[in-house]
Amino acid sequence: MRMEDTICALSTPQGLGAIALIRVSGPDTFTIVNKVFRPFKKGVTLDVEGYKAHFGKIVKGEGQSEREITVDEVVLTVFINPHSYTGEDVVEISCHGSVYIQEQILKVLLENGCRLAEPGEYTMRAFANGKMDLSQAEAVADLINSETKAAHQVALQQMRGGFSSEIKELREELINFASLIELELDFAEEDVEFADRSQLTELLTKIKTAIQRLLSSFDTGNVIKNGLPVAIVGAPNAGKSTLLNALLNEERALVSDVEGTTRDAIEDEITLKGIRYRFIDTAGIRETSDKVESMGIQRTFEKIEQSRLVLYLFDAQKATTDNQRLAQVKEEIHKLNQQFRQQTILLMANKIDKADEALIQSEFGNYENLIPLSALTRQGLDDLITKLTEQVNLGLLHSGQTIVTNLRHYDALQKALNDIIRGEESLHSQLSGDLLAMDIREALRNLGSIVGEIDVDQDILGNIFGRFCIGK
Amino acid sequence: MRMEDTICALSTPQGLGAIALIRVSGPDTFTIVNKVFRPFKKGVTLDVEGYKAHFGKIVKGEGQSEREITVDEVVLTVFINPHSYTGEDVVEISCHGSVYIQEQILKVLLENGCRLAEPGEYTMRAFANGKMDLSQAEAVADLINSETKAAHQVALQQMRGGFSSEIKELREELINFASLIELELDFAEEDVEFADRSQLTELLTKIKTAIQRLLSSFDTGNVIKNGLPVAIVGAPNAGKSTLLNALLNEERALVSDVEGTTRDAIEDEITLKGIRYRFIDTAGIRETSDKVESMGIQRTFEKIEQSRLVLYLFDAQKATTDNQRLAQVKEEIHKLNQQFRQQTILLMANKIDKADEALIQSEFGNYENLIPLSALTRQGLDDLITKLTEQVNLGLLHSGQTIVTNLRHYDALQKALNDIIRGEESLHSQLSGDLLAMDIREALRNLGSIVGEIDVDQDILGNIFGRFCIGK
Repeated sequence: MRMEDTICALSTPQGLGAIALIRVSGPDTFTIVNKVFRPFKKGVTLDVEGYKAHFGKIVKGEGQSEREITVDEVVLTVFINPHSYTGEDVVEISCHGSVYIQEQILKVLLENGCRLAEPGEYTMRAFANGKMDLSQAEAVADLINSETKAAHQVALQQMRGGFSSEIKELREELINFASLIELELDFAEEDVEFADRSQLTELLTKIKTAIQRLLSSFDTGNVIKNGLPVAIVGAPNAGKSTLLNALLNEERALVSDVEGTTRDAIEDEITLKGIRYRFIDTAGIRETSDKVESMGIQRTFEKIEQSRLVLYLFDAQKATTDNQRLAQVKEEIHKLNQQFRQQTILLMANKIDKADEALIQSEFGNYENLIPLSALTRQGLDDLITKLTEQVNLGLLHSGQTIVTNLRHYDALQKALNDIIRGEESLHSQLSGDLLAMDIREALRNLGSIVGEIDVDQDILGNIFGRFCIGK
Repeated sequence: MRMEDTICALSTPQGLGAIALIRVSGPDTFTIVNKVFRPFKKGVTLDVEGYKAHFGKIVKGEGQSEREITVDEVVLTVFINPHSYTGEDVVEISCHGSVYIQEQILKVLLENGCRLAEPGEYTMRAFANGKMDLSQAEAVADLINSETKAAHQVALQQMRGGFSSEIKELREELINFASLIELELDFAEEDVEFADRSQLTELLTKIKTAIQRLLSSFDTGNVIKNGLPVAIVGAPNAGKSTLLNALLNEERALVSDVEGTTRDAIEDEITLKGIRYRFIDTAGIRETSDKVESMGIQRTFEKIEQSRLVLYLFDAQKATTDNQRLAQVKEEIHKLNQQFRQQTILLMANKIDKADEALIQSEFGNYENLIPLSALTRQGLDDLITKLTEQVNLGLLHSGQTIVTNLRHYDALQKALNDIIRGEESLHSQLSGDLLAMDIREALRNLGSIVGEIDVDQDILGNIFGRFCIGK
């Protein structure tokens, strides 16, 4: 990190638009911008007032004559350190959204002493200048990448310091604990226990419980961030694509009232009630002696293994009119239940509008999670969505409790938990306070790495900020 | 145009970025934004100071309880009418560049009384509020779409009113002329010529010359805006693709010092010294009796017809070692020169590094525009680029003279010219002043339509602003 450099980058998406925004940050921001900016209003000085906008033009010298030619008419917004995103002097240049103009303004800034920002360098500087801790900086990237309501909410809460303050509390408790232990060590030769053993045990249990709660939230956090993997199993004519289309329409209905906004549809990724689902189509699990087909079944099993949820889809009309098919369906359900005890299996009796629902109920009513449904008429679709939503612990989200979404945080919490458990063991087995103190210090270090309060490895920092887009 | 509406739109390009910008404009801007914005600093009032930025959060009510939840932390920039782009009250919301957040902020603005802006509606309002005239508004769209230095320069000059002031001068001259005529009409019965005939003739000639100059600049303007069409003619092994690659590399060299900026490469469109060229590959013009091939030649001729410039490429090595080939090349050159008198034909003796250059000079030296060149070693490439650049009247560009780039303007100027010519005829044939006055009024109307000083048809306005992107 060369913090003495003044950096610039395009901060809005690449491409053509009405407006583009170029951000300059660093110690020489005003010197550099003054060289290339000509305010239309006489006597304007950029660095006297923060949170102030100025109208003028960006110019560049041309040829040997250094005649000034205009690059664009722009609006600058000035932020004076420390009251800026990075905590440095910052100028945002709002220019016309032509790719050519964007290039030319960057070029003239580079010629006058800026260098191009690395990906995430603005946020890295914000972290280095104490504007945010590491978990907050990571939340900025999550926030930008958030595509669902749940992901957005979790990232926003983390960016605003919700998670940080919880980690801070845990560390304070641990520091209390450590100080008691250290005190005891100081007076070790006097063989006096300053720290009440039962009080210490209680404190460790409390910390352990808190960490365990955070760790268990990762399951939800992971689903929120990466989507819930759902395997769809069923015969080709059971109506898989009709069902996916029906669900896709549900999603569209949520955003249809905002025209003019587009989104890239990723096949089989569907957002329902703010949660992303990744639907994985499978080849079905029909018994067969055909070698190629049985390889397909093998692959289906692997896909189910990686899922959290299985949608078993069958044609209710066929199952109620064809005894052989009925037997097949029951056998397949049996097989799924036997083989996949980790996954929740939803039985979807599709085409129920054309079937005898009473018969379906009498044949399948004693199974858990039977959903009579018609993908075509949308009957039963709400029941399915409710069942899907139940799979994610949205209670956490609604209660505003911290949800861990980041694997790095999960790892650090796991390590801290192990330190605490070792500490508990030392405590119970009446081992020397030295060992206990060491475990506690290690736990403090691990928790500190989440927010970046301890020195974090440069590689880890590079990894965190390298995943940002340029301009943030 | 429902100017009483308050409009909002995403003004930065669609997609993921560090920052996105949403613009609100209209009479209720502050009322609406106040409903959804919570400044972090106490006591902040948006509408007291223009050109001012504020940090805070955008909130929305959720569910029946109307509990406020945060959508994003944003920076607002406030512009108070008339000191804004549209001339109305404007707030720009700079938010995190997530597509989800962009959608949510637009949604909450819509829920609180905004409507989505039509394409170009901000600029249309700027025009309606007298912030710019019509030719300036059109230049904004040109500026955003400018991809070359020349296009950018012409658009910028037009946006800043260069063209407008020239039209204004022409109209003033015409109004002077008209007032002299009208005066004469008032005293018609007295048979006195108030207006000196020779003075009138002189004035009309002056105006005619000015319009003709503008009209003739359209040729350059069209090239600047749409690129210069160049047909490449040559045998398949003459090195066409090597040449195009070599030229493409020249272009890349111009922008290679600005990393991190991408551009969409359009095949065979190459920018050299700020001018765009559209290279059109042809099937060659070799004599043949084959029916399919002769159809290909027919198509080559059509492509040459549409071009301004023909690059005739031949293998100098073959031409100097193979007499039959030499004769063929000479015949083809002869044919091109005979058939295409409108086009400039450049003869490019390629692979000159492997050929006897003295022999090439003695065989082809008496042709105009011979360029010995090696696409492979880049020898002679600068000569080619110089020749290409000479085809565009860059003198106009460098002298800062107005260049007409817009077909609508060209048409209006052409009509005005016809009016003037008719006026001249009336003047010379001593016809009634009434007719002359009518022609002059018509010329005034046509010139006025360029800048929108007269009432412009709603369809034309719709056509102009409909081509803008949303958010501008």
